[in-house]
Amino acid sequence: MKLLALDSSGLVASAAIVDNHITIAEYTVNYKKTHSQTLLPMLDEIRRMTELDLHTIDAIAIAAGPGSFTGLRIGAATAKGLGLALEIPIIPVPTVDSLAYNLYGSDKLICPLMDARRNQVYTGLYTFQKGIGESSGYEMQVLQKQCAVDIAEVVQQINALGTEVIFLGDGVDAYRSRIAELVTVNYSFAPACCNRQRASCVGALGSVLYRNGVQEAAWEHAPEYLRLSQAERERAGQKEETE
Amino acid sequence: MKLLALDSSGLVASAAIVDNHITIAEYTVNYKKTHSQTLLPMLDEIRRMTELDLHTIDAIAIAAGPGSFTGLRIGAATAKGLGLALEIPIIPVPTVDSLAYNLYGSDKLICPLMDARRNQVYTGLYTFQKGIGESSGYEMQVLQKQCAVDIAEVVQQINALGTEVIFLGDGVDAYRSRIAELVTVNYSFAPACCNRQRASCVGALGSVLYRNGVQEAAWEHAPEYLRLSQAERERAGQKEETE
Repeated sequence: MKLLALDSSGLVASAAIVDNHITIAEYTVNYKKTHSQTLLPMLDEIRRMTELDLHTIDAIAIAAGPGSFTGLRIGAATAKGLGLALEIPIIPVPTVDSLAYNLYGSDKLICPLMDARRNQVYTGLYTFQKGIGESSGYEMQVLQKQCAVDIAEVVQQINALGTEVIFLGDGVDAYRSRIAELVTVNYSFAPACCNRQRASCVGALGSVLYRNGVQEAAWEHAPEYLRLSQAERERAGQKEETE
Repeated sequence: MKLLALDSSGLVASAAIVDNHITIAEYTVNYKKTHSQTLLPMLDEIRRMTELDLHTIDAIAIAAGPGSFTGLRIGAATAKGLGLALEIPIIPVPTVDSLAYNLYGSDKLICPLMDARRNQVYTGLYTFQKGIGESSGYEMQVLQKQCAVDIAEVVQQINALGTEVIFLGDGVDAYRSRIAELVTVNYSFAPACCNRQRASCVGALGSVLYRNGVQEAAWEHAPEYLRLSQAERERAGQKEETE
């Protein structure tokens, strides 16, 4: 099964082609350009480099949110357009889950942190467990589903679990001193090769989700903003934008 | 510290720009084109996309071998040319070590396998240990230095250690059934997002090596073929090529 995978949920733009257990190409940029300038040219670049016929793609895995509202919309529009044209389904992958997938196989608690502004982080808590069978791979367990909360709230959960934790994501830079102040367990930060969104993580986790029946028609897909309904409630129709 | 990182040791070609703990850009292709067609265009692509002035690069981290002889030479020539022109040092990163770095933070035994032809694999054994201090990151421990051996030899070492192991690398495809036959401990294979060479792993591990004093002048750098002297001994001057 060949997947096109996209992530434009944060500052990072990333596109990948994942063919079963092999990443054919991955292109990731973490640079202050808008995703409308980067995502499609990047996708076109890897398509040309690997002489890919887009009609051989079976599905599109996309980081479906939360994240930057504009970034998610650019990603969703791209995925929906391609999905409709190629008549293939979309696999919506929770952004925070695919961020956690960077630390595949770790026995530690994984805590992705995306800076959500307004004193909140998009976060969740994850761990990996070996599947049944001596040669089974690892399955990611979701201990806390992705959510938008104050950093203190997720740290409180971590402290209560009492387990060593690895943080990653752009929220680390924003909250490094708060983490040092609040966390009571051993902790560390993931290094440069595995601490930001990567489309191959979206693709690899998307393959797992797809095998478990997760998919939707391209016309059905909509980003998961996580905070929209709250904003609608609180501001009674006033439009919310995170950027 | 800003690093340019390159890996052309195997089928994969990968280029990245790593600025301290952030990967600014990474471009990886696993496709049957020769690296002379891919590596420099990929580097130029990420340079243009991130508006990078090459003169701001402090050092070049390169997957220094083992690997495909031709691939290593293309990588070394590229790194040496850039290093000489920019007057910056090269950080030689053992290829198998940087492949293992894909599974940063895992408590399992990590066994990269690169298909070395002639019934051998380039391999090694690694594990990660948390540094001293509650907020220290993980340090990769080398239990078996990278080497060229028969698959049975490294599996014998794994069985003797008796520890659960995760395999990765293109050698997995070539030796999957032999692994199933020989391994007596629990084992698994890394998924698509972390099972092949990635330049950001070269860059992240290269940063660690650089802090420990590893660097050389561009004119000094030469790939580590691992099997060359053996070939020289065995064939008395006959030229060896793995591809």
